[in-house]
Parts: sequence; structure tokens; C-alpha cells
Amino acid sequence: MEYNVARGTRDILFKEKRRFKLVEEVIRSVAETYGFNMIETPMFEHTELFARSVGESSDIVNKEMYTFNDKANRSITLRPEGTAGAIRAFVTNKLYSSPDMPVKLMYDGSVFRYERPQAGRFRQFRQFGFEEIGARSPYVDVELIMMVKAILETLGFEGLKIKINTIGDTESRNNYSKVLREHFGAHIDTLCEDCRRRLETNPLRILDCKVDVNHEAIKNAPKIKDYLTEASREYFAKTLELLDSLDVKYEIDESLVRGLDYYNDVVFEIHQEDNKYGALGAGGRYDSLVKEVGGPDLPAVGMAFGVDRLVMIMEEEGMFEDENDVSVDVFVMPMNENMNAKALATAEVLRSIGLIVDIDLSNRSFKSQFKSALRKGAQAAVIIGEEELNNNALVLKNIETATQETIKEEELVAKIQEIVSL
Amino acid sequence: MEYNVARGTRDILFKEKRRFKLVEEVIRSVAETYGFNMIETPMFEHTELFARSVGESSDIVNKEMYTFNDKANRSITLRPEGTAGAIRAFVTNKLYSSPDMPVKLMYDGSVFRYERPQAGRFRQFRQFGFEEIGARSPYVDVELIMMVKAILETLGFEGLKIKINTIGDTESRNNYSKVLREHFGAHIDTLCEDCRRRLETNPLRILDCKVDVNHEAIKNAPKIKDYLTEASREYFAKTLELLDSLDVKYEIDESLVRGLDYYNDVVFEIHQEDNKYGALGAGGRYDSLVKEVGGPDLPAVGMAFGVDRLVMIMEEEGMFEDENDVSVDVFVMPMNENMNAKALATAEVLRSIGLIVDIDLSNRSFKSQFKSALRKGAQAAVIIGEEELNNNALVLKNIETATQETIKEEELVAKIQEIVSL
Repeated sequence: MEYNVARGTRDILFKEKRRFKLVEEVIRSVAETYGFNMIETPMFEHTELFARSVGESSDIVNKEMYTFNDKANRSITLRPEGTAGAIRAFVTNKLYSSPDMPVKLMYDGSVFRYERPQAGRFRQFRQFGFEEIGARSPYVDVELIMMVKAILETLGFEGLKIKINTIGDTESRNNYSKVLREHFGAHIDTLCEDCRRRLETNPLRILDCKVDVNHEAIKNAPKIKDYLTEASREYFAKTLELLDSLDVKYEIDESLVRGLDYYNDVVFEIHQEDNKYGALGAGGRYDSLVKEVGGPDLPAVGMAFGVDRLVMIMEEEGMFEDENDVSVDVFVMPMNENMNAKALATAEVLRSIGLIVDIDLSNRSFKSQFKSALRKGAQAAVIIGEEELNNNALVLKNIETATQETIKEEELVAKIQEIVSL
Repeated sequence: MEYNVARGTRDILFKEKRRFKLVEEVIRSVAETYGFNMIETPMFEHTELFARSVGESSDIVNKEMYTFNDKANRSITLRPEGTAGAIRAFVTNKLYSSPDMPVKLMYDGSVFRYERPQAGRFRQFRQFGFEEIGARSPYVDVELIMMVKAILETLGFEGLKIKINTIGDTESRNNYSKVLREHFGAHIDTLCEDCRRRLETNPLRILDCKVDVNHEAIKNAPKIKDYLTEASREYFAKTLELLDSLDVKYEIDESLVRGLDYYNDVVFEIHQEDNKYGALGAGGRYDSLVKEVGGPDLPAVGMAFGVDRLVMIMEEEGMFEDENDVSVDVFVMPMNENMNAKALATAEVLRSIGLIVDIDLSNRSFKSQFKSALRKGAQAAVIIGEEELNNNALVLKNIETATQETIKEEELVAKIQEIVSL
């Protein structure tokens, strides 16, 4: 019987796995210079956390969650994004008692969405996310945007541009929702089934419907910018002014509303200027989420990168330098089984000085073993034969120069360091 | 409304998260010198994979799996251990076509078991696992054991001892099962309900029953060593001989049978001599699993560390050197909102040379900001006031010496490097 990977999931092997690690390491180390600290939250949470935070009206909660009952019949959901869990952790662990606000959290890990699998889109993928809790200030938002840019530039991305919009504060959105409800109410018969539901639950969601995207009523819909409160209008203006003064390129995109219910005011995405690959990262402000999950009334802002996307783009654009698999430094070749124990001990010595050592313990022919050494990219081979074993000697072969010499065991470390470039 | 973490799971914050990363980094880098390469498999697999590999008769499959139906009604299970998925990935990705056997895989990540939560035992925990596929040889097993020892020694563990046993090959186990079935059949009325079931499905499991652990029939049970085939007996003897010749301390433990069905022949655990914390890692040989999941008939051996356990023990034993949280290098203090943009730009410059920089954008009083700088362990503070802003100047404060000077903007990088030890 054969077992396949579950639909929409995949294995990440060798070189690609190293690339994930590299990208995550760059993100983490740049973010550390901005004062972010790592946390890890569980892979699943109570379903209600996501329903209430990500939003009952969002596609994620409605269609895309891996929800199940555990053996005690509690409804549990594999996290579909990172923010809800991170904010829940902030509250659970009372991090709001810190005297130094904002608290800056970051995390990386898998998230799960039951979407139709497509090229480059998987049901399990990795997000690297950031949450900054305890400050409402355009300066804080712009600092986060600058970090996002610095991270992508460190990874090698060029020509970056911010797409930015405001979706207003709660009051702005309530005003706007009322207007949208009237506007779309007149078109209810020609909207898709989901949008008819959205008309009640959250008419803003209609604006980014994938089915009705070309519907006239969406194109002619009223704009949020005409329904902003004074506070929201000023907040957005200040943010843009600051981006100007810090020379950060941006473009206002009024269609940007983000598919999660918890956002307010500034939302943004980061793109390359040619926009070949769409958003490289996205985020926004969410000033009521901390309170919503049981914490104090603290404002917050956050963003996340999709790591799979970044790795895929960097691969397509040839931005990784590691074109080869990790190669072995030294290959140890015992000539028959009697030399295996000696070969193991010799390999241990070389590993203890940090060399990558492989060893053939299956006692194939010299020729087969040597071919393995070549395939694995070894720079040196250590050959142990009957005669060498009896004389505490070894044959050391320099693979590049194709030369070899018989040496005393105690000379090995010094001699090998002449051959292997570390 | 307040949301709690799901029962049996936990958040890992800041210092502890860094310790997990450190431990995983040490494990990975030592294992690389043995020629292991990283892979990542999905968080869930088809339920049948675990049922067939880990074993229908094991406690894990019977009681401890997070199993649910996805939206297409496929039975899916959060991985309860790493080997089944890794071997499935080996087969799915046809890694058996490599000319160089054994193939050496490693992975780290979360696994999920629905067990009663206890101090130090969680329903989601991290494993770092190793699989070596394509060789059946005591030399390979002993090399793996030596690596396990080298990893733990690099982490700082001392006085390590291997507990080792053989559970025989398939023929040995069939013979032994028959004898055990007769032996325990006479005691069926006094065995626990699980053991009565095990008597049919897999009588070996009775030997490590947690309920019947003190039952006379278990204490008097026949020993596997008396039912080994010649091949299994020789394999085990050769393994022990090799451990002797390489000076690896071990102890034969006949009660060691491991709770997963796929093992055969050599099984082992690694402990500290005082055995204060139980097993630090465990593994064994599984020569029929690759074929069982649809691959060619290739033998294999593997082991895993429980990373949470290692971190917990190392914390209790004071083996980490990082007693403090990561501290900020420089704290930037704008004296009022007009200086915020300048402060952001200044922080960017310092971050670009790798310094960890925090910044107060909420424009609290000098005193409050400076207290934050002290709490965060900053070595330097950069103060930006109205006068400095107008003169392209900054005040640079050396926090350790409590001295400060007004400097030109362009002097900042050089001056700060005199203060901050990198």
C-alpha cells in the first residue's frame, strides 16, 4: 500500500529547507535590530478565538479553517493566521503589564487554510509575523513599514513600493457600512450568494469579492475616504506625510481592504515596482483586537510575510547563492569490515573539529566508495586498509589534486586542514 | 470575553524560545557533521499512515491521536511523531533512487499527542528526529548512537549512558509473541482491559503496560533474548562488541521495548548515569517500515530527541548561559513629536550597522524614556531635542559611565561604536 502526502500539503527537502531557514534567519535578525522578540504559540486554538478575531464574515473563518472537535468535544482550529494567537498569548501571559510599550512580538511557523490548491499555493504554509502592541501612532506604523522594507532589501529585493490605504476607525466603518448596505441593497439580485450574506454581516467584504470583482456596483461603490472621521483622516494624512519625509515610496490603493475583520485605519502591502509577484508582505492596524480577546484596551499594529512565497520568488529570480547541496568535506573509506570500527573512530575525530564527514560502512568496492565521495563533493578521502590498520596509518587522498600519501594517524588533523578549506 | 490557550498546549516566550532555537541549532549543526540533511514534512498526514506504521496496537494510535475529517471527509491526523511522515516523504519523493545509501534525513518540528497534561508534558511538543535509510549494519546503528552522544555532550550533558536492548527481527518476534500469548493467556482475568486487547493484537505491548506494570505475570514473563533468531542474536552481539571497542558506556535493559510497532532488533535510549530525568533521546531499527508505506524493501534506523524535555532539563540544571533577555544596544529618545521623524531616521542608520535599537515614539517625559532605556539594558542613549534638530546634532549618552556629549550627526556611527561592545 502506498501513502501520499495529504492534499494541498508538501514536503520541503534539503536545499529548499535550507533556503527557508536562511530567509527566516534574515527576517529574524533584521527584526531584532528593531527590538522584536520571538514567541511561539500553539498550532491550534479554540475555534471561537478565530471566529471572533479574524471575523465571522471573513472567507477564512467561513470557508477555510481546519476545525475539529478534540476527544473532550472542544472545538479546536488549526491556526489560519498568526495574529489571533499572538494577541491571545499577549493577554494570557499578561505581557500588557510591561512598563515599556509598545511590546514587540515576532513569530514564525505554519498556518493552515483549506483553499483550492494551486501552483505555489498550499494548505499549509509558513508565515513570519510581527505584532506591536500598546501604541497608536503613525510613527509606529511607519517604523514597521521601514522594517518591512529593510528586511526585504536585506534579502536582496529591489525597487520596493508600499501600497497603502485607510479603512477608517470603527465610527468611520460604521458610517461607511451603512452607505454600502444601501448602495449594494439595490443590486442584491445580481450579487453572488456570498455577497448577499456579506450585505448583512459585513458589506466591506463585498469590495474584495473574487466572484463579483467586475460587477458594476463594486466599481461604482462609494469610497471609504468620503466617510472617514476627522481622527482617521488626520491619522492617515500624518502617515503619508511621514513616509514622504523619510523617502519611502508609496501609492494609495483604495481597493486595499484586507480580508480580515480586525483591521482599522492604516492597511498596507509591500510590492515590487513591476508588481510581478503581487504582495510580498502585508499588514495593518488593529486597535480593538486586544480588548476583543479579553485584554486591556490597547491599540496595535502588525504585518506578516508569507515565507513560502518569498522563497519561491527568490528561487525564480535566482536570488539564492547556494546553487549546490551541502557537500561533505571528508569521505572515510574502510576497505573491509575489519576496518569499520577504526573508520568510525577516525570520522569522530574529524567531526569533532567541525568537518562534515561521511563514511561508507557497507564495505562496497573501492571504486564504488570513491564514486560516492566524488558525488558528495568531498575534498578529501581517508582510506583505511589492512596494512594501514596494522601500522596505525591512514591513506589521505586530496581529491582536487588527485594525489595521496600514507600518513600516521596522529598527523591526520593537521594534514586534513591543509586540504579542506573551511 | 477571554480566550485561553487550548488545554495541554502552551506559549513559548522570549528567552525560552531563544533557548529552543539554540538547542535545535546545536543539534542540527553537530548532525550536519555526520552528513544529515534537513527536511520538513506536513503537520498532518492521512490517518492510515500512522495507523499502519506506528501501529494499530500502540497507545499512540489507540488513544492519543488528534484525528479529524477535513472538509472533503478525508481522515487526517496531526502527526503524533516524526518517523512515519519522514519515511512517507522518503518514498513520495523517491529518495530511494539515490546511489548513495544510507540516506540521512533530519527534521525538527511539533508533534501532537492527546495525553493527560502533566508537569512538563504537553499535548504539543517539539521533536528533533533522525532517519538513516538503506543500510542494515551494527556499524550504522553505533554511528548513530555516537552522534546522539556527541550532540548531548555539545549541549553540555555529562555522564551519558546508553540503555540498549534487542526486540529481534520479525521471525524472532513472531516466535516470542506466540510464547507470550500462551503465558499471558493463563492470566487473562487479572490483566487490564487494554492488555486483554493487546493479547490479541500485540502481546509485546503488555510488557510496557503502565497499569499492569507490577503484575506478577509481567515480572515472570519469558524474555525475548531466549527466542531470538541466530541473525538477530548475532546482530545484537556485534553491536555491543562495537560499543565496547569504541568505549561507549551502555547497559542492557531487557524491559526496553519502545511503544511503537515498527521497531525491530536494536532499540536504545540515552540517559544520564544518575537517570534523574529519564531518557534524553530514544530510537531503534525499523527494517520493514519503508516497504510498509509503499517504498522498496530498505532497512532503516532512527532516533529522536524531545526538545522541550532537553530545554527543561538544561534550565533546571543551569546549563544555559543567557540568564538575561536580549538587551537593546541603543535607545533613541526624541524630546517631542517634532523630533520623531528624525529619531526614526537615526534609528535606521544604527540598525543598518547591526545594532539593536529601540525608540520611544510616544513622547513621554525624558525621565520615563530614560527609565525604559535602563530597563532594556541599553548601553547608549541618543537624545534628540529641538536645539539639536536645528543644528544637525545629537546628544549621545554613555549609560555605563553616565557621561554625555553633543555630537554632529555624521559622527554618530563612529562615536557609538566606541561605546557599544558588539
